[in-house]
Amino acid sequence: MARIVMKFGGTSVADLDRIRNVAQRVKREVDAGNQVAVVVSAMAGTTNQLVAWVNGISKLHDTKEYDAVVASGEQVTAGLTALALQEIGVPARSWLGWQIPIYTDDVHGKARITDIPGDNLNAAFDLGEVAVIAGFQGVSPDGRITTLGRGGSDTSAVGIAAAIKADRCDIYTDVDGVYTTDPRIVTKARKLDKISYEEMFEMASLGAKVLQPRSVEMAMKHRVRVQVLSSFADVPGTLVVDEDEIVEQHLVSGIAYSRDEAKITLAKVADRPGVAAAIFGPLADAAVNVDMIVQNVSADGKTTDLTFTIGRADLERALQVLRDAKETIEYSQLIPDPAVAKVSVVGVGMRSHAGVALKMFETLAAKNINIQVITTSEIKVSVLIAEEYTELALRALHTVFGLDATA
Amino acid sequence: MARIVMKFGGTSVADLDRIRNVAQRVKREVDAGNQVAVVVSAMAGTTNQLVAWVNGISKLHDTKEYDAVVASGEQVTAGLTALALQEIGVPARSWLGWQIPIYTDDVHGKARITDIPGDNLNAAFDLGEVAVIAGFQGVSPDGRITTLGRGGSDTSAVGIAAAIKADRCDIYTDVDGVYTTDPRIVTKARKLDKISYEEMFEMASLGAKVLQPRSVEMAMKHRVRVQVLSSFADVPGTLVVDEDEIVEQHLVSGIAYSRDEAKITLAKVADRPGVAAAIFGPLADAAVNVDMIVQNVSADGKTTDLTFTIGRADLERALQVLRDAKETIEYSQLIPDPAVAKVSVVGVGMRSHAGVALKMFETLAAKNINIQVITTSEIKVSVLIAEEYTELALRALHTVFGLDATA
Repeated sequence: MARIVMKFGGTSVADLDRIRNVAQRVKREVDAGNQVAVVVSAMAGTTNQLVAWVNGISKLHDTKEYDAVVASGEQVTAGLTALALQEIGVPARSWLGWQIPIYTDDVHGKARITDIPGDNLNAAFDLGEVAVIAGFQGVSPDGRITTLGRGGSDTSAVGIAAAIKADRCDIYTDVDGVYTTDPRIVTKARKLDKISYEEMFEMASLGAKVLQPRSVEMAMKHRVRVQVLSSFADVPGTLVVDEDEIVEQHLVSGIAYSRDEAKITLAKVADRPGVAAAIFGPLADAAVNVDMIVQNVSADGKTTDLTFTIGRADLERALQVLRDAKETIEYSQLIPDPAVAKVSVVGVGMRSHAGVALKMFETLAAKNINIQVITTSEIKVSVLIAEEYTELALRALHTVFGLDATA
Repeated sequence: MARIVMKFGGTSVADLDRIRNVAQRVKREVDAGNQVAVVVSAMAGTTNQLVAWVNGISKLHDTKEYDAVVASGEQVTAGLTALALQEIGVPARSWLGWQIPIYTDDVHGKARITDIPGDNLNAAFDLGEVAVIAGFQGVSPDGRITTLGRGGSDTSAVGIAAAIKADRCDIYTDVDGVYTTDPRIVTKARKLDKISYEEMFEMASLGAKVLQPRSVEMAMKHRVRVQVLSSFADVPGTLVVDEDEIVEQHLVSGIAYSRDEAKITLAKVADRPGVAAAIFGPLADAAVNVDMIVQNVSADGKTTDLTFTIGRADLERALQVLRDAKETIEYSQLIPDPAVAKVSVVGVGMRSHAGVALKMFETLAAKNINIQVITTSEIKVSVLIAEEYTELALRALHTVFGLDATA
């Protein structure tokens, strides 16, 4: 007997037939003698509708109310999935974030899980019940509903897997695994059998939407064996594992991209100590994550231009914050640019091989793609480019780093 | 300064514009210096969609999961309404049933409120906040979400009004008050300025959908001043008050009808002690409310026919229960009839005047409408008739009891 967590994304529970299909998959694991916790997302489209309503009422909304509204989608699928299981003879009940409870901090809209006591779920297993858990949601120290950010159900699943010491955490989705890059753009993309936690974390952070980055971070920390696989096809997926489980190492394992980026340039910022704090302090207070930062050399010794990137969804909020703080920061102009994309090459092989960054820059230069900002880490190099060059960059890099499928 | 509860039904919050309209109405009361608790239903159509999904997955469903799914609709409107208030400068936050908490029993699907501690809401008022409460929902002793039955948001509103000792409980709806009968059927129906708790309770119980019966019961018990009024027009509504506040008494105040009825006949039931318990015990266990009952005189001293009515929505469940209990009950045939309607005349004036029932029966006989079952109470007479005669019966009775508007 094993304990497993099965997580189903929005397309896997998009309608009643698919929910019935999910129930059948769960039943198979139950029939095999396993204890199963199921984590479900909202029906595809539901969250977008709810978010649209919230934005329709209030552009700069109270995130506590956003969470109360948006978390309702997972509540619906949890109940329906429990019913679908009962209907085929599998004892089951739904669990909401506050019922388990899934404790989080109070950063509404992108809360972090702080603790998940396993007691209630363990008691449910003792009763022979499948626990069907509403993903994406938790409860704050104040007893308000929180949500874990887009893709948060992945993190719910891994968190639950850690809490109940699951043997496996299977993430069912609408793709059949993790690819070297987005196969919708690069037809020669290959599915990976295995990927290391570190690489998966970078890929997810850099825009590959197959898993929420925090879920990978949590899996790495608690050594949860995660598998990404299709809920529609019975084919092996991609295992996310320890680096040393991967035999054949490539220099670069994958190429990620993100169009959810926006660039802001503050022109003629005073070049004095404390100015960075004056800019990024208020942004942090408004829960705007700043990603890449570039500060030009001061020409006159007095002012400089400062460029940074944020999530595109935060652009309006960030601009508002910066306008409000104009007097404190002292800048001459605020220049937003939402038409940018981030392209990143990722691979643990980089640690022992220099030259990946150089090869990347040369390849982009050969295609006349201008690099606006660069960031690097031990296992990745990211560049910001104009959005329109995204596909071109991806295909060129996929080829040059030897990732193309040899069909 | 007064404390008021404002309840808005599904059509009043059917889309974002209407939610903004609700916020404006609330703001008016806040600007007048009042402390306001708002109770909202789900957006019109939402609950039906959720119920359809539940029934689509499982016809004889677990009502605990039904509640978890269906309660999500009010969660959405509570959050959106709080946001709409914030957007026009009115401090507000949403409250879910489990957060207040609204304690109920564990009869899922039609739970009864057992207690509402006012502390959290009073604290919110002290902060100058409008409390926007998700109607229709509560929390069971086990910490599961419960719902209060169709129209349950009315009961939430009156319950909240009692808990916070509100001066007024205004029920905003898509009609502008309580009418002598359904104006969509009887064009000469008149709006009542006032109606007594007792009459309102009977009218509501007997099919007038303007208020949930339990809300009236609760208002009567706690002497909550309820007003039914339109959320679209600025016209006076109907006050539900103590009988002695009503000066001009009519013999009959209103005529109610319900098409949500179904009739079941058990043919050749053994005519012996304990048979009623064998029939109605299992139905009660399955939470099927039996309304009218008629037992024919036994022809042979051994068997009899037994006819009773239930809510049409419970028909399938009731038939299942009776089929399962066939051996215990011993009947020859189970005959369901969903094509029936109940028509009732209501008025506190009946207490002091005999002859209302007779006048009713004569009027129906003159129209060749066959009466299948009869029940009476101190202030009402109800008859079960074939559904197709509903309109005819309503119009005839409305005229004969002097309720027609003198245009």
